[in-house]
Amino acid sequence: MRDGLLRLLLVLSLVASGGSARAEDGYDLWLRYRPIEGTWQARYRAATSAIVAGGDSATMQAAVAELQRGLGGLLGFAPPIGRSAGPGSVLIGTPANTPAIAALQLPLQALGREGYLIRTVKFGDGTATVIAANDDAGALYGAFHFLRLLQLRQAIDRLDINSVPGVQLRLLNHWDNLDRTVERGYAGSSLWDWWKLPDYRDPRYVDYARVNASIGINGTVLNNVNSRADSLTAAFIAKAAALADVFRPYGLRVYLTARFSSPVLLDGLPTADPLVPAVRAWWKAKVDEIYRAIPDFGGFLVKANSEGQPGPQDFGRTHADGANMLAEALAPHGGVVMWRAFVYRAEDAEDRAKQAYNQFQPLDGMFADNVLVQVKNGAIDFQPREPFHPLFGAMPATPLMLEFQITKEYLGFATHLVFLGTLFEETLAADTYAQGRGSTVARIVDGSLDGHRLTGMAGVANAGTDRNWSGSHFNQANWFAFGRFAWDPHAQARPIAEEWARMTFSNEPGFVAPAIDIMMASREHAVDYMTPLGLTHLMASDHHYGPGPWVDDLPRADWNPVYFHRADGAGIGFDRTRTGSNAVAQYSPSVASIFSDAGKVSERELLWFHHVPWDHRMPSRRTLWDELVVRYSRGVEGVSEMQRRWSTLAPYVDAERYADVAAFLRIQRQEAQWWRDASIAYFQTLSKRALPAGYAAPAHTLDWYRSLSFPYAPGHWDPPSAKGH
Amino acid sequence: MRDGLLRLLLVLSLVASGGSARAEDGYDLWLRYRPIEGTWQARYRAATSAIVAGGDSATMQAAVAELQRGLGGLLGFAPPIGRSAGPGSVLIGTPANTPAIAALQLPLQALGREGYLIRTVKFGDGTATVIAANDDAGALYGAFHFLRLLQLRQAIDRLDINSVPGVQLRLLNHWDNLDRTVERGYAGSSLWDWWKLPDYRDPRYVDYARVNASIGINGTVLNNVNSRADSLTAAFIAKAAALADVFRPYGLRVYLTARFSSPVLLDGLPTADPLVPAVRAWWKAKVDEIYRAIPDFGGFLVKANSEGQPGPQDFGRTHADGANMLAEALAPHGGVVMWRAFVYRAEDAEDRAKQAYNQFQPLDGMFADNVLVQVKNGAIDFQPREPFHPLFGAMPATPLMLEFQITKEYLGFATHLVFLGTLFEETLAADTYAQGRGSTVARIVDGSLDGHRLTGMAGVANAGTDRNWSGSHFNQANWFAFGRFAWDPHAQARPIAEEWARMTFSNEPGFVAPAIDIMMASREHAVDYMTPLGLTHLMASDHHYGPGPWVDDLPRADWNPVYFHRADGAGIGFDRTRTGSNAVAQYSPSVASIFSDAGKVSERELLWFHHVPWDHRMPSRRTLWDELVVRYSRGVEGVSEMQRRWSTLAPYVDAERYADVAAFLRIQRQEAQWWRDASIAYFQTLSKRALPAGYAAPAHTLDWYRSLSFPYAPGHWDPPSAKGH
Repeated sequence: MRDGLLRLLLVLSLVASGGSARAEDGYDLWLRYRPIEGTWQARYRAATSAIVAGGDSATMQAAVAELQRGLGGLLGFAPPIGRSAGPGSVLIGTPANTPAIAALQLPLQALGREGYLIRTVKFGDGTATVIAANDDAGALYGAFHFLRLLQLRQAIDRLDINSVPGVQLRLLNHWDNLDRTVERGYAGSSLWDWWKLPDYRDPRYVDYARVNASIGINGTVLNNVNSRADSLTAAFIAKAAALADVFRPYGLRVYLTARFSSPVLLDGLPTADPLVPAVRAWWKAKVDEIYRAIPDFGGFLVKANSEGQPGPQDFGRTHADGANMLAEALAPHGGVVMWRAFVYRAEDAEDRAKQAYNQFQPLDGMFADNVLVQVKNGAIDFQPREPFHPLFGAMPATPLMLEFQITKEYLGFATHLVFLGTLFEETLAADTYAQGRGSTVARIVDGSLDGHRLTGMAGVANAGTDRNWSGSHFNQANWFAFGRFAWDPHAQARPIAEEWARMTFSNEPGFVAPAIDIMMASREHAVDYMTPLGLTHLMASDHHYGPGPWVDDLPRADWNPVYFHRADGAGIGFDRTRTGSNAVAQYSPSVASIFSDAGKVSERELLWFHHVPWDHRMPSRRTLWDELVVRYSRGVEGVSEMQRRWSTLAPYVDAERYADVAAFLRIQRQEAQWWRDASIAYFQTLSKRALPAGYAAPAHTLDWYRSLSFPYAPGHWDPPSAKGH
Repeated sequence: MRDGLLRLLLVLSLVASGGSARAEDGYDLWLRYRPIEGTWQARYRAATSAIVAGGDSATMQAAVAELQRGLGGLLGFAPPIGRSAGPGSVLIGTPANTPAIAALQLPLQALGREGYLIRTVKFGDGTATVIAANDDAGALYGAFHFLRLLQLRQAIDRLDINSVPGVQLRLLNHWDNLDRTVERGYAGSSLWDWWKLPDYRDPRYVDYARVNASIGINGTVLNNVNSRADSLTAAFIAKAAALADVFRPYGLRVYLTARFSSPVLLDGLPTADPLVPAVRAWWKAKVDEIYRAIPDFGGFLVKANSEGQPGPQDFGRTHADGANMLAEALAPHGGVVMWRAFVYRAEDAEDRAKQAYNQFQPLDGMFADNVLVQVKNGAIDFQPREPFHPLFGAMPATPLMLEFQITKEYLGFATHLVFLGTLFEETLAADTYAQGRGSTVARIVDGSLDGHRLTGMAGVANAGTDRNWSGSHFNQANWFAFGRFAWDPHAQARPIAEEWARMTFSNEPGFVAPAIDIMMASREHAVDYMTPLGLTHLMASDHHYGPGPWVDDLPRADWNPVYFHRADGAGIGFDRTRTGSNAVAQYSPSVASIFSDAGKVSERELLWFHHVPWDHRMPSRRTLWDELVVRYSRGVEGVSEMQRRWSTLAPYVDAERYADVAAFLRIQRQEAQWWRDASIAYFQTLSKRALPAGYAAPAHTLDWYRSLSFPYAPGHWDPPSAKGH
């Protein structure tokens, strides 16, 4: 008998190890739930002997299923579902669906609909854990939080946690086209298999919803802001409704973009003028049609009169006229309009950085109650670094929704390791001084500064069909960080990096500290090797993978890198002070006085606001030219340092993910060198100065860098024109 | 102690079951290696106690690794690598790398480079299993065959297997573009991440090579026959070389398509005329450059003077002139040219079915020794059913390579369950009578009829980035079947279906028989609901997902469905007899006499060759019109029958794959109904006859079917023209 057992044991352990040796492909993201090591195992088990859940709504079922999946993975077996709570139980629900929770009389009032508390309470001769909320959605978020505690090896025997989201609308924006391409192809194709919807519901949709719920994201805009009217046809509404059905249990609402000319394109109306009654009636009917299919539809995201998209200005109307027409149609159903402030005009000679402010600031107070104006973090376009957008603080009567890019379109795409948590924190912590010191972007976004109840934060999604979702393992951290900052705009990047690194890779101290160091320094390296000292928008044409500071032949002035860096024989940088475009005047006086002064503005933003002579003395005592070369070089060296650190982490990471990251770092190192060398080669033709001692000349001539061409870069679709076989 | 063990056992078994309960996502294809049930387990273990391998080439390492992986999965532990063989050993290698195999003096002469034998031999007081070949590649193929025996629960104690491939070049053709789109988007994006190559080598490339090796595929053409010259630039050659490096251990060679105008496009030559010395020199230098990067490069696949592709006829030269020029450059390196016969001309009023024959047959004997002419199975274009291509049997002095489509571009793409093994078998078994009875297509393709040593079979790949590789679980069977038929063109579809079903799903008898029935009948259902009785090419415009028999407005006559069905008030079908296009004359007299006679030709091909009156009496005694309606309806009913059968298989299949297949069958059922109803609605306007009794009228009007439009069907790329944010 014992021998037989031993043999069986051997077989099982081999099978089991075969299972866990299975390569990690990144699909599970931070919800890996791998078995916990011994000491913690026993402690956690004692506190998770059963799950007691109230209600059987789809959301409560999802919460319980996640607890079973998570605890089953972490502890080796899934706790049974109990009928009544006892010592060691995990009790989850709301006062309405669980009498035992109602009986505890917990202080849930301030938690709202989505907040939750997690508490250790006395129960009989022991304790139980209560995850309680006012609504099932809050309970689901609490379940993920509880699992995270175990994933992070936190004690769970004396819990007293309250968590309430700081922002109401926490949304992903998918720049996904109806043909399943994605704007620039960040991580494979679109997750939405439009062709097979609504009949086929890919099981991956459920995982997408789970992952978003795990970080508190509660809405998703399914299609590209560069929009097709077809997304509003009956066929596509039915497809969106199928996704909404899958997402609903996870508290994830569906939103759509709306092409402003849809009444003309879909039903042949003679105009899309928002003040024409027939147009208003068309939108009202369309919105009613959507709500019949999707009762909890979230609303519209609109890019209008920008980069070729139609809008109300086509008819002499304002952005407010356009937004309010849609808002009127959505209001009876509780839907919102998110109207984007990312606008600039070909015919406008004004500094591009000023145009959004000029168009929108005068409209403050003119938008309907269910309109948010969605503003990118900076005034240009998701660059490695931008000063905060001047609209923040300038439209107190309007809810401003902050738009971040989770994808890294200007930050190296998949292969560059760049953690965006520091960028998110930098923007949110920026002080607008709109109402004096402490008027941070975070306080504008969370509504506290101006007393807005309707608040939102959007992140341009980096999730696609790639098996690891995000194009690289470290890109997953940016999705995670976005969710955490949207939940709490006052959060900090470092603890978020730590949480992610622990959940995604390892809790070993030998891993965690170096991994955090890599992540926290990573974005500054990218700024250094791409656009140091406040430079911006220097990408090559047709793709955003490499440098093109020399580009001056694009049809619109403000698409050309030379427009942005303004380098010449005298110096480099864009004068946005009173002697230049005076964009500084769009900021509050306290901020403007600093940005205007080349001696006071941070080096990080120097060339954003000032045209600076090549021989200007920097705080380092180096000339600007020398400092520029030093920064470019430092960026490259930073990537080498990340490579060295990553190489020490091999013992803690499965072979497949270790090799993937290492290979991508090699590519990043090469491309950082490319950025440095090409940029220096070009700027040197203007500065006409030698490189500082000890800094290597570019590996190739400027002509060589200019000659590089990449017609098949991802997102630059170029299938053969002739189809056939 | 016993209690502790039992507890540990419990934990381990839960972990282990957690592992195996993991949803099956199809990634492992037919190489799942899931644990074998008890009785077989013990028998197999006794015969696999150790692996003894000679040599340490990359290919031998791959073979041993596969045995360890496979046996480890199937039997619960991977046998150790032994130094010397003993009873129970698996001995694998060649006489050259393994003295123990040399000592056995096995009859390896007839096996060639890729054949192998697997034998049970006496060893000491027991037996051992020998997997022996002349070359490492043969040993690798033998390893996969050996594992397959276990996967199929075959006895392995008295083995005496010889296997030699019947065809030399067994190739996949990827219609993958350099921007990672795929011709019509069969299964996600291209597997080749060109942008990250050569620096990043996706681990999936190894699995791709393993899978191909498991079915004997030994070459892959990486890029689309609708070709870009850029595939021959230094940058892309380096990328192809990286793939070749990954594939090489698995016996998988890399090939490329060659755009005929490349000398002009890449290096500004004034002409691409194949008789101009500078052009010949350009190709020679280009080929030399490729071989420096890829020493075992396979050669070029060329689509020339067809559907807009450039070719030698642009310069008044023949296909032979073009092919021979490339052949001359490749010959010193051992490379081949595969020159496609899929040609037809806009300016040629001749029956499209006749044009390839007319252009190529006169060139027989004029091609260089290392040229194969690659001929599709039928004369039109991968339709649900076509008679065998008339070139088979008509070019005895030229090696004809057979091209099948593994993707189902005209057979419902991913969501229609259509097993192509029966189509492959039907073509290969077709008798051309070129040298009298028994002159099957298989004997032309394997070279035995005409004494060709150079032979080949190509399959247009259905593998993409979809997690299950092929867009659906059952589509995997077509990749598998193609490989098996390429290895043995005289094979039969049914045992191949059985092998695949067992390896991919279950060996349970309750599963296997119904699964085979579903697969074997599936293609006939599709023929019935799409193009019964010899009809062909009736797809809608711009996409190939649905019916468009009414389409008559495409710019070229022979792209229009009305060109192919020729239905009118009198009847339906394309008269290809002497009273019509006389395409029958392209077949040998014995075949032509049957095809020409509406009373003798198979009903399956009736309307391919004859324009038949609506009231023509069919063998069923029904009129043609009634028979057409019956066939369309029978096709739909066939899908219902597949649904019913599949529903009985739930107990044998994991929940995820079961649900996926069921969902796709529901879509197939809907679309089969669409095909039937739209086709009947249209043809009835011409036949002006009532439906036979008991057959339902179409659900919608013809106008409704004609109004359907699908601008975003996969492969019909339509990203917003304006890029921006």
